[in-house]
Amino acid sequence: MKIGIVGLGLIGGSMGLDFRSHQHTVLGVSRQQTTCEQAIARGVVDEASPDLSLLAAADVIFLCTPLHALAATTAALVPYLSTATILTDVGSVKQPIVEAIEPQWSNFVGGHPMAGTTESGLDAAQPDLFVNRAYVLTPTEATPAESLETVAHLARSLQSQVYYCQPAEHDRAVAWISHLPVMVSASLIAACQSELDPDVLNLAQTFASSGFRDTSRVGGGNPELGLMMAQYNRPCLVRSLQAYRSQLNQIIECVEGEKWSDLEQLLSQTSRDRPKFVDNLQK
Amino acid sequence: MKIGIVGLGLIGGSMGLDFRSHQHTVLGVSRQQTTCEQAIARGVVDEASPDLSLLAAADVIFLCTPLHALAATTAALVPYLSTATILTDVGSVKQPIVEAIEPQWSNFVGGHPMAGTTESGLDAAQPDLFVNRAYVLTPTEATPAESLETVAHLARSLQSQVYYCQPAEHDRAVAWISHLPVMVSASLIAACQSELDPDVLNLAQTFASSGFRDTSRVGGGNPELGLMMAQYNRPCLVRSLQAYRSQLNQIIECVEGEKWSDLEQLLSQTSRDRPKFVDNLQK
Repeated sequence: MKIGIVGLGLIGGSMGLDFRSHQHTVLGVSRQQTTCEQAIARGVVDEASPDLSLLAAADVIFLCTPLHALAATTAALVPYLSTATILTDVGSVKQPIVEAIEPQWSNFVGGHPMAGTTESGLDAAQPDLFVNRAYVLTPTEATPAESLETVAHLARSLQSQVYYCQPAEHDRAVAWISHLPVMVSASLIAACQSELDPDVLNLAQTFASSGFRDTSRVGGGNPELGLMMAQYNRPCLVRSLQAYRSQLNQIIECVEGEKWSDLEQLLSQTSRDRPKFVDNLQK
Repeated sequence: MKIGIVGLGLIGGSMGLDFRSHQHTVLGVSRQQTTCEQAIARGVVDEASPDLSLLAAADVIFLCTPLHALAATTAALVPYLSTATILTDVGSVKQPIVEAIEPQWSNFVGGHPMAGTTESGLDAAQPDLFVNRAYVLTPTEATPAESLETVAHLARSLQSQVYYCQPAEHDRAVAWISHLPVMVSASLIAACQSELDPDVLNLAQTFASSGFRDTSRVGGGNPELGLMMAQYNRPCLVRSLQAYRSQLNQIIECVEGEKWSDLEQLLSQTSRDRPKFVDNLQK
């Protein structure tokens, strides 16, 4: 199969490595000529060009640009496509992306491979990035069944676990477990840093250990990514933030009001609930 | 030196292993006769008994019971002590503990070795638990300088980094980086679990990945520990929780009001601030 990839960063580059190792021909597009040359040199693609016309020959095209570039990339790509060409994306928010791309190209399958590292860019691309990770597909009534099956087949060939859901369901789910944690965690760092006594702040920074390290990790990550999540998944994130604030208020009430048995019950419940989210993961 | 340890759990047991390996004689007290026997069999102590009178021979006694038992243990222990006997504790909150013990025994040094694992009890005891960890000592004006030096020397012999501060400063610092994260993280689990659509909840549980795993870790831990932190460090924790809520409100305002440059600035700041807390740790 001829597979096109637009955007040769961590995700696009890692896909190229895997698809080529499965004997597909991979055609890559990056805005930078130097990235195209590096991608060929690293064996990420068979051919590469800054020119989208290269993808006229592709059977399936993976859009791997940042979220904000997906719709414009589609518009620029459409003139080169034949009706049989399947378009799919890897955006981490689905409803606004699906709504922006589907009217432009009906042979489209929304997707979200839930893999990543703290690194980004072509240099971070690696084989087997998607092994045992969720790969979510978000078909609509307009999605051709055969195209959905083709993309699902390719996702499974990366050894991903394929899940299907509606774009809106996807966005609500990831708001909880991916976008809300960033804001929760960032607020923790900002709160600690707000300590006005320099001696106490210095002690806090010195004593911080694994608990703080883990709770603050995603809040200290790439600010552009956090911003983009918030912009694209705003309604779901606002809902999650409001639910979070009301849970926090409950805890504050318990501590302020010395309602110790309520607090113990709440902490026992979270201790029982956490495994429902993380038991499938390496701890 | 003859070292007494009351409470043969993770902390007390691990101290016993290290002190014995440095040729000290270790005398252990545990309420349970079986724990005493196991401690001798594991080489954690030289002698053990459920009877505090065993410690009449000790030069320094480490109180390693849970926070709520420290004051009562001291009261029961005092009849057996000679004035030269140094008492020190390992409680994770200092001001209320120091205020409860010092009037009973002036030859006292408040301490907090900042080490631990997710496990507890004698079975979890291990050599070298304290290596490279902070060991905080919180002397007051009443603390004998020589006794402080003796405890600091023993803490350094565990290869800990010894820090000195006031009990109140300690409690404010650990409220930020140890106790607040538990409440922040527990609120996250509770908020996610509050999703009412069972399909979306199921997707959230399925898609949860390393970001959720890390941010939720300390909120899914031992509820008794979380409760005890809140009870003993309540004023500091309330202050930290209120500062946290106001940071969270700022973020919610940014997202609700689409103040994207404010949000980007905030996330850039947390990304710059986090290393001040965690750069000394393994990431």
